[in-house]
Amino acid sequence: MEGAVLCAANHAPLTPISFLERSALVYPDRPAVVTAAGDAPPRTWRDTRARCLRLAAALAGLGVQRRDVVAVFAQNIPAMCELHFAVPMAGAVICALNSRLDAAMAAVLLRHSEARVVFVDAALLGVAQEALRLVSAAGARAPVAVLIAELLDGSVSAPSSSGASTIEHEYEALVSRGGGSAEFAVRWPADENEPIALNYTSGTTSRPKGVVYSHRGAYLNSLAAVLLNDMPSMPVYLWTVPMFHCNGWCMAWGVAAQGGTSVCLRRVTGAAIFDAVSRHGVTHMGGAPTVLSMIVNAAPEDRRPLPAGKKVSVMTGGAPPPPTVLFRMEELGFLVIHSYGLTETYGPGTVCAWKPEWDALPADERATIKARQGLHHLGLEVDVKDPATMRSVPADGKTMGEVMFRGNTVMSGYYKDAPATAEAFAGGWFRSGDLAVRNPGDGYVKIRDRSKDIIISGGENISTIEVEAALFAHPAVAEAAVVGRPDEHWGETPCAFVVARKQGVNAEEVIAFCRGRLPRYMAPRTVVVVEELPKTATGKVQKFALREKARAMGSLSSMASRPPHAGNSKL
Amino acid sequence: MEGAVLCAANHAPLTPISFLERSALVYPDRPAVVTAAGDAPPRTWRDTRARCLRLAAALAGLGVQRRDVVAVFAQNIPAMCELHFAVPMAGAVICALNSRLDAAMAAVLLRHSEARVVFVDAALLGVAQEALRLVSAAGARAPVAVLIAELLDGSVSAPSSSGASTIEHEYEALVSRGGGSAEFAVRWPADENEPIALNYTSGTTSRPKGVVYSHRGAYLNSLAAVLLNDMPSMPVYLWTVPMFHCNGWCMAWGVAAQGGTSVCLRRVTGAAIFDAVSRHGVTHMGGAPTVLSMIVNAAPEDRRPLPAGKKVSVMTGGAPPPPTVLFRMEELGFLVIHSYGLTETYGPGTVCAWKPEWDALPADERATIKARQGLHHLGLEVDVKDPATMRSVPADGKTMGEVMFRGNTVMSGYYKDAPATAEAFAGGWFRSGDLAVRNPGDGYVKIRDRSKDIIISGGENISTIEVEAALFAHPAVAEAAVVGRPDEHWGETPCAFVVARKQGVNAEEVIAFCRGRLPRYMAPRTVVVVEELPKTATGKVQKFALREKARAMGSLSSMASRPPHAGNSKL
Repeated sequence: MEGAVLCAANHAPLTPISFLERSALVYPDRPAVVTAAGDAPPRTWRDTRARCLRLAAALAGLGVQRRDVVAVFAQNIPAMCELHFAVPMAGAVICALNSRLDAAMAAVLLRHSEARVVFVDAALLGVAQEALRLVSAAGARAPVAVLIAELLDGSVSAPSSSGASTIEHEYEALVSRGGGSAEFAVRWPADENEPIALNYTSGTTSRPKGVVYSHRGAYLNSLAAVLLNDMPSMPVYLWTVPMFHCNGWCMAWGVAAQGGTSVCLRRVTGAAIFDAVSRHGVTHMGGAPTVLSMIVNAAPEDRRPLPAGKKVSVMTGGAPPPPTVLFRMEELGFLVIHSYGLTETYGPGTVCAWKPEWDALPADERATIKARQGLHHLGLEVDVKDPATMRSVPADGKTMGEVMFRGNTVMSGYYKDAPATAEAFAGGWFRSGDLAVRNPGDGYVKIRDRSKDIIISGGENISTIEVEAALFAHPAVAEAAVVGRPDEHWGETPCAFVVARKQGVNAEEVIAFCRGRLPRYMAPRTVVVVEELPKTATGKVQKFALREKARAMGSLSSMASRPPHAGNSKL
Repeated sequence: MEGAVLCAANHAPLTPISFLERSALVYPDRPAVVTAAGDAPPRTWRDTRARCLRLAAALAGLGVQRRDVVAVFAQNIPAMCELHFAVPMAGAVICALNSRLDAAMAAVLLRHSEARVVFVDAALLGVAQEALRLVSAAGARAPVAVLIAELLDGSVSAPSSSGASTIEHEYEALVSRGGGSAEFAVRWPADENEPIALNYTSGTTSRPKGVVYSHRGAYLNSLAAVLLNDMPSMPVYLWTVPMFHCNGWCMAWGVAAQGGTSVCLRRVTGAAIFDAVSRHGVTHMGGAPTVLSMIVNAAPEDRRPLPAGKKVSVMTGGAPPPPTVLFRMEELGFLVIHSYGLTETYGPGTVCAWKPEWDALPADERATIKARQGLHHLGLEVDVKDPATMRSVPADGKTMGEVMFRGNTVMSGYYKDAPATAEAFAGGWFRSGDLAVRNPGDGYVKIRDRSKDIIISGGENISTIEVEAALFAHPAVAEAAVVGRPDEHWGETPCAFVVARKQGVNAEEVIAFCRGRLPRYMAPRTVVVVEELPKTATGKVQKFALREKARAMGSLSSMASRPPHAGNSKL
């Protein structure tokens, strides 16, 4: 429009760094980071900015350039909060590694990311040192390692001095030294689409992929996450979501946007959560349904009353929360918000937005509704599409399609993997690999299964999630995972791997139990009792390993026992 | 970063249109727009989107092209809420004209904006028709006029049929007809920096300027305004801020971002506010301090109790709220948030972020703090700078500088006025023209005066705002405005124009009163009692007119009576 210009006065790249700058100005004396146990003095926003500037200067001093990767291998400790700003302020890309990785996997990711520097939590020193040895042994340049020795809050033993001696730098020394006397000039992104983070997916099936986040996407999804949580200014956020997981579902930045306080917690237990809520006046937290289970299953002596008259808001994701857990959470005074997303969508992408008129429904209906993944939040769009035609499926509760996203809070791509990026973005949408239906009426997305996990039996789709739900209802089943087993007639049939509770479990009895709850063709034809299920570092079941096991068992020949399936499909 | 791409899957122009699209999906059955009096059925978000699509189609049918200007001359009626989406959906630029304009000024703006279409509120039909006649009489092409005849809620008389007959289209007819049978394809902006709105400033000094907003800036400041108000999802927003004013401080879009309900109110009175709060469960509203005064001065019989246990949040701006008004608002259960900005910063740019530790301070200290303009919110930066050197002033509470902004929520420029744009952005910051100091300690900005209003007397700066505050404290003064009057010795001295309350006022007595409250050199040397003050359409005093009057009075020769000013400067 005539007279309109784009210049320094009216345009700046969107970046979460601006959240820190603002909170240091507006909330300088408020606590930015505390430890759950209260065993370290709180750090204010003013301190945090000063420390991040010195850390950024120190990184520059270590030779870190714009767009270099700086890895962090740590639990939810205060340094993690700081590095989410200090690394981007040095112009670099933060790669927060899963703290449960073994040395071999950590070495693979350090090499793949070409990290120039790696920050190592003292609690993970042994694994990190072995990983660094593996990187060097493979002939690659090992990153400069920095030990974070601070705040071993009693739950972790200090590293042996011999172990620590192979790491040349120490975190607090870098913070103290900084880059010299002058204030470091923040390396603001020249373009908001520049990378800010590299997040490796947990790899349930194959090699991990490095998901690239931009400053723009991180800024926008941090605000979306704040809004999705109805999070007012100055929240107190308890770190029960790992910060290595989608940068704590973008809350590593979002808390700064609202001038909030991060309460860092190394080891998540029901007792630790109640203690932190009571001690710090926690207003918000998050976690997979397992975290919710810890809360409702906490021993009576471990419980503390919640702050009077205030709900503690808990965002959950990763899997729909089970109804009984939801009821108990509500009774205890927690407000559960169900969100869904993937690493590729910066964590939270959809929310099961709750409508006041649902409050009056019976508890089981409320739970059914809350288990839905819902609709997209600000920053992107969600749809359920036929992956072949890219047509949207009807909202009929039964036609399955693939969940797809597009928008500003979809990843920039997979690091050094242009083919995988092109495949994920084919058709102009990000293909999640999750299969879902849309609820009639409100159109809320409801996930049925991962597309690679679905079992196709005689032309019928069988959701392994539904079969697993039936198995979980059995009192003797502690864990369960279902995959397809080759079948001469039907192609494949459901095969369940179950971990029994103490009292043990009988396979035939489990099959009979499932047949009482599912259409017969959906019930497992095979039940294998195992000691434990193979899992990824983030605790997801590795179904590809179970599929190999099922294949190794050979084909079933089950024609006689298969009932006619016409008319009883639930999908 | 290798593997990172920018494509349809991960990039979309930021635009508030996406707020409507999302709310129509997530909150389809919730009320989007209601009238305060409840004299029209609520319109849901689903309806609103459908109506906006048909309106956009109708605009296209009237020949509206991308980047054309579509003007609206209306009070805060439901159509205003819709047009904030329908016009951008047609690819066009909404120009909401001040509903208090006279025909001559409206004609100037219709010609300057080259509006293709103008929507006319039936309540403003007479002025609009005269304005259209003036446009045609000047040989310019008059815009296509559309009458909004709906919802004359009793407070406004219907137009005479003879008057209406010169306007060829009617709003509801356009909504019904739309563009035909097929759904209109929204003209999404190809670039988020494209214009979405054109807002004429009220022009306290000279000709009005057309401030251009972009889709990006509107998106970002809508979210900033939502966060600044601590506004959760599904708010109920009472329209006491005119929607023609910075698009209702960006809330015309912000309410949609949160799936909220707009409560439209034509005529703002204390009784109407209490009635609407009680009837609709209003959670948020806004307004200049005059709106706050209406609330606290409402007659007892006009008051209604606020919803139990809930504060009604009121964002105020335009001028610092007076302490007594703040106290009464708090007592009544309102929470006042003080924000500051200009049309050029999309309305709210700073906020006097409230810190919990201030709650314990005495009431007058709280009021003094809350009267500060504060610090910038998300989306831009604020600073106070010496306009010559562009150096930041120290936060010492006395060194004055000009308030400057830069960032994504600063206007794109002045429409068809490149020289004014270049001047406003000189040095890479938007120069507000407001003079301020920064508070010691927290650095909060405190406005002293408009730079063109400040009086320089013997080298001392005199804030006319401070002199006016002393005048307002006089029980017989209803209104007051202070300008500089030429003075042979001092250059200029303060000259006050006052409107008296019923009992009348004595000029000498007012001067004596001020001398008891101000350093003597700051007290008015001249007091002129007038019937009324010259004002702009938005109610701001036109100081340039008063300066002319003061000049016409001739120079004072006041040397003998001027006290030495050393040591008593308050600035």
